[in-house]
Amino acid sequence: MRRDLQFLLFEWLDVVSLTEHPYFAEHSAETFTGLLELSERLAGDYFAPHNRLGDECEPRVGEDGRVVLPDEVGAAVSAFAKADLIAAQFDESVGGMQLPLSVFQACMAWFQSANTATTGYAFLTIAAANLLTAHGSPEQVDAWVRPMLAGQLFGTMCLSEPEAGSSLADVATRAARASDGTYRVTGTKMWISAGDHELGNIVHLVLARTPGGPPGVKGLSLFAVPKVLADGRRNDVALVGLNHKMGTRGTTNTLLSFEGAVGYLIGDEHRGLQYMFHMMNEARIGVGLVAAAVGQAGYRKSLEYATVRTQGRLLTARRTDSRPVALVAHPDVRRMLLAQKSYVEGSLALVLRCAHLVDRLKTADDEDVRQLLEILTPVAKSWPSQWCLEANSLAIQVHGGYGYSREFDVEQHYRDNRLNPIHEGTHGIQALDLVGRKVVMSDGAAFRAFTDAVHATLARADGLAEFTQPLSRVLGELERVTALITEPEHAAVGLANASPYLEAFGHVALAWTWLDLVIAAHGKDGAFYDGKRAAARYFYRYELPAASSRLDLVARHDRTTLDLDPQCL
Amino acid sequence: MRRDLQFLLFEWLDVVSLTEHPYFAEHSAETFTGLLELSERLAGDYFAPHNRLGDECEPRVGEDGRVVLPDEVGAAVSAFAKADLIAAQFDESVGGMQLPLSVFQACMAWFQSANTATTGYAFLTIAAANLLTAHGSPEQVDAWVRPMLAGQLFGTMCLSEPEAGSSLADVATRAARASDGTYRVTGTKMWISAGDHELGNIVHLVLARTPGGPPGVKGLSLFAVPKVLADGRRNDVALVGLNHKMGTRGTTNTLLSFEGAVGYLIGDEHRGLQYMFHMMNEARIGVGLVAAAVGQAGYRKSLEYATVRTQGRLLTARRTDSRPVALVAHPDVRRMLLAQKSYVEGSLALVLRCAHLVDRLKTADDEDVRQLLEILTPVAKSWPSQWCLEANSLAIQVHGGYGYSREFDVEQHYRDNRLNPIHEGTHGIQALDLVGRKVVMSDGAAFRAFTDAVHATLARADGLAEFTQPLSRVLGELERVTALITEPEHAAVGLANASPYLEAFGHVALAWTWLDLVIAAHGKDGAFYDGKRAAARYFYRYELPAASSRLDLVARHDRTTLDLDPQCL
Repeated sequence: MRRDLQFLLFEWLDVVSLTEHPYFAEHSAETFTGLLELSERLAGDYFAPHNRLGDECEPRVGEDGRVVLPDEVGAAVSAFAKADLIAAQFDESVGGMQLPLSVFQACMAWFQSANTATTGYAFLTIAAANLLTAHGSPEQVDAWVRPMLAGQLFGTMCLSEPEAGSSLADVATRAARASDGTYRVTGTKMWISAGDHELGNIVHLVLARTPGGPPGVKGLSLFAVPKVLADGRRNDVALVGLNHKMGTRGTTNTLLSFEGAVGYLIGDEHRGLQYMFHMMNEARIGVGLVAAAVGQAGYRKSLEYATVRTQGRLLTARRTDSRPVALVAHPDVRRMLLAQKSYVEGSLALVLRCAHLVDRLKTADDEDVRQLLEILTPVAKSWPSQWCLEANSLAIQVHGGYGYSREFDVEQHYRDNRLNPIHEGTHGIQALDLVGRKVVMSDGAAFRAFTDAVHATLARADGLAEFTQPLSRVLGELERVTALITEPEHAAVGLANASPYLEAFGHVALAWTWLDLVIAAHGKDGAFYDGKRAAARYFYRYELPAASSRLDLVARHDRTTLDLDPQCL
Repeated sequence: MRRDLQFLLFEWLDVVSLTEHPYFAEHSAETFTGLLELSERLAGDYFAPHNRLGDECEPRVGEDGRVVLPDEVGAAVSAFAKADLIAAQFDESVGGMQLPLSVFQACMAWFQSANTATTGYAFLTIAAANLLTAHGSPEQVDAWVRPMLAGQLFGTMCLSEPEAGSSLADVATRAARASDGTYRVTGTKMWISAGDHELGNIVHLVLARTPGGPPGVKGLSLFAVPKVLADGRRNDVALVGLNHKMGTRGTTNTLLSFEGAVGYLIGDEHRGLQYMFHMMNEARIGVGLVAAAVGQAGYRKSLEYATVRTQGRLLTARRTDSRPVALVAHPDVRRMLLAQKSYVEGSLALVLRCAHLVDRLKTADDEDVRQLLEILTPVAKSWPSQWCLEANSLAIQVHGGYGYSREFDVEQHYRDNRLNPIHEGTHGIQALDLVGRKVVMSDGAAFRAFTDAVHATLARADGLAEFTQPLSRVLGELERVTALITEPEHAAVGLANASPYLEAFGHVALAWTWLDLVIAAHGKDGAFYDGKRAAARYFYRYELPAASSRLDLVARHDRTTLDLDPQCL
């Protein structure tokens, strides 16, 4: 992964050119490389060694009612914070180092790949600090963001409730204004990751409803609810229980009861969801990164296994007394490895590109960049979540029976990664976001920003007809189909087929990404660059054709699911 | 599932007509129905209640060195045996009831769906008894088959070794003939399911090599190695350790050391693999059944959840103050349910059809039936293993966050089902079996038997153009591609692309199955039959097009994986 991150950041995205802009001027290729190396080292020293332990010894409630985690979790998070990595992407004005998000996400890839469960505590704190920085008052930033960046305070996102998951319109938690200007928050929040632990104090960011506000999402406000108040008193936030998950077990997942807890309004009333989405967009890119990084972990481990493990003989040279060959000598094993490579390296590139778009918005307020980022966000969340899980399944398959055993890491990666199509907006929610919002927003400007970007790549792809021809063709199909489903009379059926559309869009976005990577590798020799070309070729030949079948379905305004009588199920 | 099994057995396969033949003459619609009802009841009473317990309290080695299982496992297996279900499919001559395999597999669907891990003990014993009945001497049948059928003796299959999984040519376990005609078996066997427990004595069926035999698979002989010998002494078979798996945890999985253990030769020397394959073909159909049944479990539970759980509003009628609707009202949830239905009901039908071919061979020695069974076996094993796992993933997705929690069953079904693409020949091994053996065997007779069967269905499908047109087209593609890859000069690349070919073949086989089911439902009204039509339609519209892209790839003799330099990975 080291070589791949170098390629993506320095040869493809050219992140060093960001340092020409005043915002990133303190940085250089050396500071970027230094942080990447530090991340690799810390991930190896503090995160990877307890990845399995965190899974086996999942968080539990001790006799004193406190949540017990393995000691290694605290040590790892502390090492992460001491390296200033929680602070890295933040403005200097709040104590950050103004590191480009693209470089920071590349650093995070090391940690997520080593131990996604423990990294979760940092991930959520960064997301909370991000939101507070954007929408909190200067006093709130001082009170919470600075200690978060120092690793002394942790954050959560409290959106879901037992009866309200995807449907935030039904959030029932209430917040009543007290005479001192603070609020009393009452309600139950479900699936709260890192919702309780002893790593430090916690500030919960809670969506709740104030009296008299409008129904639905427009009535939601955002509150900061510390676990322990500034005066040292325990706030009225009770841990009702821990949820036990299939994977990512090392991150506590909680059911929390807010029982008239003291909360502080963030920004204005009734704008809570809007604030939350500010954070959520970046968190969604972050989820894509997690999926890609866990996919990477499985890919590297199955590649290593396939290189050292011998099994069978080549069918083309079957002699029963010859010695067995390495697994990787078998074409079908190579297929499973190359498929993983195309999914995980393509995903990593897509995610880093999105992060790079965020960086470019810091250097210039470019509307096209903003639109491109908007439309790519649901794809950068959903595509890696779907396909890097498939990569993890292939990593198991390469291991054979050993892959299904808990003695090898790949089964845990698979269980861990199964989370990603669910949280931060399910796969289906991403599809509705793409079709119902992103494709039609600003009169189609976001969709045009995407097609313009693909056309620009195609225009630079001289002599790469094996890629430009299929990509041009499927892009044309995507454009036609998009025009069809945005006709108002087809809105309902378009939304009913939002998932197939999302999946086809994702394949086009990945094909674009792979072509862009092949261009960056063009004229360069050696196994690394040949590998990029091979993975791109695999993706175009084995995977991209599926996009056309999905688009055909959407183009036909297929009503199979829309019209289905549930009695028939 | 009750209604579906009735439909498949009585309306589609017409299993009652089997009873016109002397072999099945003791049976009737009533005995079939009685056994199905009994199976449903026993599965509900004895198997389902401890499915989660068996996962949580996985087998462990007690202080006395014995394997400890929850008591419920023994009670369940005993109830299964007392109902004569271990004996059901066997000849009366060995104490069986000559139940058609199709009916027996339908019974098994109840147990596998309720608790596949506990059912594993019976499954493996049936497979061992099957092999011993076919190839054992009359004395061996008396000594082992009869007590197995009575539930007093259990069986295992000992093929894999730590260094020999898919590659049986490398089996290193040795067997030396002793002066009394028995053998001494020495070696280590890995991944042995049900390899140790206290449910009763065990007879291991062991592939081993006799001195001076030819190398490779042709030198393998088959031995029966009892855990406890007839005189009550413990044989020299040591439990080295238990393997801990991602799922199907309730079935012990063992590493066994044979240390000069007394073994009894089955049949002739050097024919061990041939005997093992007799059993394996039926076991592969059985694995397909497991995958389908576990897929069914997830489908039923996610359907029930989607019916009772409310979440969100229809996008077409968004009014924030209206009441939330049931999940099943959302088209994307219906898509996930219909997809599951098409995978799991299609798989169940394919597997029961294969079992029915076995039954037909009992009534008449029909070469076409034999050939069709041969070519369908790798498909009936691999397609359900791949797609019913995907169904289980969708069952999780329907549940949202709850699906990822261990409080709900669907996450266990997903983990349990991940086994099936691995054991009894991995996915890749099934692909090589199809392309390297079944498609070319008997001068293409098996492939012709398949295409003849599809053409026969097409010929009966009057007025069903929405199915016959796409199926005819893709069948034509399959025929053309098959001709291409069976040309000797393309053998290597054909084998390199065996997995895509297998997957395309599987889709064609499922499309054929679904059309056949639609014909059986033709002219019949009601939600059940409409559901069959809807699932078939879903499969043809959403899934079948993928077969064409795969076939295109194979037709191009794509060398991406064959020519790949592993250094590029």
